[in-house]
Amino acid sequence: MNSTNHEARVQHEGLREKIMSAEEAASFVQNGMNLGIAGFTGAGYPKFVPTAIANRAKKAHANGEEFGIGMLTGASTAHDCDGVLAEANCVNFRAPFQSDPAMRNHINAGETHYVDMHLSHFEQQVRFGFYGDMDIALIEATAITPEGKIIPSMGIGTNNQWLKSAKKVIIEVNARQSMKLENMHDIPEDIGEPPHRQPIPIVDPANRIGTPYLECDLDKIVAIVMTDAPDRNSKFADPDEKSKKIAAQIIDFLEHEVKKGRLPKNLLPLQSGVGNVANAVLMGLQDSPFDDLMGYTEVLQDGMLDLVLSGKMTSASATALSFSPDALQRFNDNIDFLRNKLILRPQEFTNHPEVIRRLGIIAMNAMIEADIYGNVNSTHIMGTKMMNGIGGSGDFTRNSHFSFFVSPSTAKDGAISAIVPMVSHHDHTEHDVMFIVTEQGFADLRGKSPRQRAKAIIDNCSHPDYRPMLQDYYDRAAKAGGLQTPHILNEALSWHQRFVETGDMRIK
Amino acid sequence: MNSTNHEARVQHEGLREKIMSAEEAASFVQNGMNLGIAGFTGAGYPKFVPTAIANRAKKAHANGEEFGIGMLTGASTAHDCDGVLAEANCVNFRAPFQSDPAMRNHINAGETHYVDMHLSHFEQQVRFGFYGDMDIALIEATAITPEGKIIPSMGIGTNNQWLKSAKKVIIEVNARQSMKLENMHDIPEDIGEPPHRQPIPIVDPANRIGTPYLECDLDKIVAIVMTDAPDRNSKFADPDEKSKKIAAQIIDFLEHEVKKGRLPKNLLPLQSGVGNVANAVLMGLQDSPFDDLMGYTEVLQDGMLDLVLSGKMTSASATALSFSPDALQRFNDNIDFLRNKLILRPQEFTNHPEVIRRLGIIAMNAMIEADIYGNVNSTHIMGTKMMNGIGGSGDFTRNSHFSFFVSPSTAKDGAISAIVPMVSHHDHTEHDVMFIVTEQGFADLRGKSPRQRAKAIIDNCSHPDYRPMLQDYYDRAAKAGGLQTPHILNEALSWHQRFVETGDMRIK
Repeated sequence: MNSTNHEARVQHEGLREKIMSAEEAASFVQNGMNLGIAGFTGAGYPKFVPTAIANRAKKAHANGEEFGIGMLTGASTAHDCDGVLAEANCVNFRAPFQSDPAMRNHINAGETHYVDMHLSHFEQQVRFGFYGDMDIALIEATAITPEGKIIPSMGIGTNNQWLKSAKKVIIEVNARQSMKLENMHDIPEDIGEPPHRQPIPIVDPANRIGTPYLECDLDKIVAIVMTDAPDRNSKFADPDEKSKKIAAQIIDFLEHEVKKGRLPKNLLPLQSGVGNVANAVLMGLQDSPFDDLMGYTEVLQDGMLDLVLSGKMTSASATALSFSPDALQRFNDNIDFLRNKLILRPQEFTNHPEVIRRLGIIAMNAMIEADIYGNVNSTHIMGTKMMNGIGGSGDFTRNSHFSFFVSPSTAKDGAISAIVPMVSHHDHTEHDVMFIVTEQGFADLRGKSPRQRAKAIIDNCSHPDYRPMLQDYYDRAAKAGGLQTPHILNEALSWHQRFVETGDMRIK
Repeated sequence: MNSTNHEARVQHEGLREKIMSAEEAASFVQNGMNLGIAGFTGAGYPKFVPTAIANRAKKAHANGEEFGIGMLTGASTAHDCDGVLAEANCVNFRAPFQSDPAMRNHINAGETHYVDMHLSHFEQQVRFGFYGDMDIALIEATAITPEGKIIPSMGIGTNNQWLKSAKKVIIEVNARQSMKLENMHDIPEDIGEPPHRQPIPIVDPANRIGTPYLECDLDKIVAIVMTDAPDRNSKFADPDEKSKKIAAQIIDFLEHEVKKGRLPKNLLPLQSGVGNVANAVLMGLQDSPFDDLMGYTEVLQDGMLDLVLSGKMTSASATALSFSPDALQRFNDNIDFLRNKLILRPQEFTNHPEVIRRLGIIAMNAMIEADIYGNVNSTHIMGTKMMNGIGGSGDFTRNSHFSFFVSPSTAKDGAISAIVPMVSHHDHTEHDVMFIVTEQGFADLRGKSPRQRAKAIIDNCSHPDYRPMLQDYYDRAAKAGGLQTPHILNEALSWHQRFVETGDMRIK
């Protein structure tokens, strides 16, 4: 990187004088500060300054000094952000979502307090002061215009909020991000304070309601760090047989609803969570009879990109672009074609219940486990350990037109059943869950009582190894007490306890 | 009742010819039919035809014939509707809310399938066909205009939906309801089908966005039954000491937020669930420093009525009016003053996440129990038996600006703790619950991790009899496994099991 690059990327002269090293920028971060950091599903997070902060923390700890921060982001970042800070043991508090192995270990070891929060609520809760003062915003940008407007990179996340609420701002300008990202983003004006808010005027996933730039008081910008590094760009595994079976059932159901006249021929706007099953559904739609599809999702990944590239999907709205290396290449090669078809919004708008409910989204999200009554655990392993977090699954599940939870029926070579008597942690309740799909089958829970749901889930979704065990539990529970939701209280979580003790939910 | 009354109440000549007895009207109801019945919190439900249907069912059963119906309402009704139908054992299916002792018994005995559903979602789910075809609408009206427009009575509930979706319509015209109710209701046009919906233009609780009348295809009206009977009109108990203590803490908190500049001086629109504690808060506001209050709630009861009558509250929006006999008298005596200050809307609008989130409601709802991590059970006794249902508590809790859950810290003379290691049923998860208040104290859970929440709830909200037991559970759980949400899986529900076995959660 050289000064020509500086001029091309930081076009505002005054701000160019704020360019400094990551180490110098990290010196603004002090023990006890709250940092609002960019990043959404491994896209658009800062890549250099977090390591510099981590090094400060290690040095302080080596000197016997305290050094800990609050780390608030859009969603997950990557090893060079969450990972390095967790390894330096300097994150006292983390919100609202993470998926990094080192951060997860620190959370589950009790070293980091973690608030796992709906992504649609988080931004306004920051604004309302639920998380205290925000000291520093640390975001990534593609470039800064001569007027000081900030061109975001591969994600928006909570950046708009961090720029507004933080006292000081540090910007990483990443030369690796395409300058042609300009105009792909849509940053609305402030949503206002209750009770004087107006409707959000998004009535179509393709609507743009704001400007393509982030802005802030330029005097708050204390440092600009030039970087040149890729996003996380995790490789996708090709869909396995189980994922393909799950995807095929969802597509069959949607075809059936179209035939019955209950869904438009181009379906409704699609939301897809992260993971192989969700990706398999999107790949399956490539060969489906549906055309003119619309995307309205948090994270746009390979499957949805290819639907737009093939012309199957006319537009897609998201909060971040998170691609495999191959898909990133296809994205950059076709960015002129894509730029007016993809829209990146702040997560407060993408995940807003008002917009999701109005548009009537079809939502597909992965789960860890479901119970026989249709409650879903999206976050905790055996009730106590955090995996990643609820993310936007609650926003989409509660407010969507159709909502699918998907998982293979077993994990760990069959030692764990994804269908259990009672989930060990509740993220989505019986009131919110409509469809559960495993490679074994499809349970339609709409309009069903808990006892009717139990039959649908046990018969259709459970693995044959566990089906008789579930039926036996249900039959005995139905003799034991109240019949709205039959349970045997001292046995309801015994499958998880057995796994903790023996490594297998099955009785040996 | 005489024919003069008929002419005054049923002003449409053609419809006057449809006047018949409740028994004749009930003859339209056949075994296996789905009925959409009016009623919301003991207001505006049909009072005569349900008994006639129950008598038909009893007769059929005595003859060895099957006779069962699906009973879908707005929310709860009263003994002369839910009660008589349950006692005739003719309700195969019930949704989305009930609170009748006989109905509850049938549900918990497994004789009635009950879908306990968010009130904001129910109406659109009916429209989308989740509950199958609707055969008959059975609603209550105050009167019918010469043009055949229907003046609703003390509640709207789901009536608009029933009139649209049912094949046949039966209307009870209740001469007991004041003719001056005309123009108090606000029925918006259809909300439309996704993805072509527009924003709901309610930006102030006092906005009217529709017409004051219900309408339907008049050819669908097969029967009109003249009635003259009161609503449920349950008497309110005066707030006890515990309710007053809970109310005082909430009002103190709101005063503090106003002082800090984080709430407007007239607060934000208030939602209040049913019950003595909620009523105590509203009574407490009568003597508070706040003026120009706004109400935005499902059920408007005595406490909120008196705030409007005293001038403390400028307007109140609700879906039903449910008063004690004394309050009903005050309402009728002052109806000219009240008519443009009270607005009754369909529950799909009152409880809509779009409107609740936009307006920034302050929500107060009762709970059965909360656990140390802030999960709340609003519906089930000891995990298996249905009490009433979730009602609108999920709609308001998830989407409100501030959301309080309130309960005395113990029940059954101390044998039940309202704070437990793990709730026996999850209706509102850790992601949604902000404040828990008992007579012992106030737990502010905002921005806190599960371990921080546990400290706040155990220290502030639990009863001294149970506090050491809860602390002991937490301390042992924190040594046992993952520290995001410490639990001992085979002990988490043991308090409930102990109560089932011994009648007391305490160890004897």
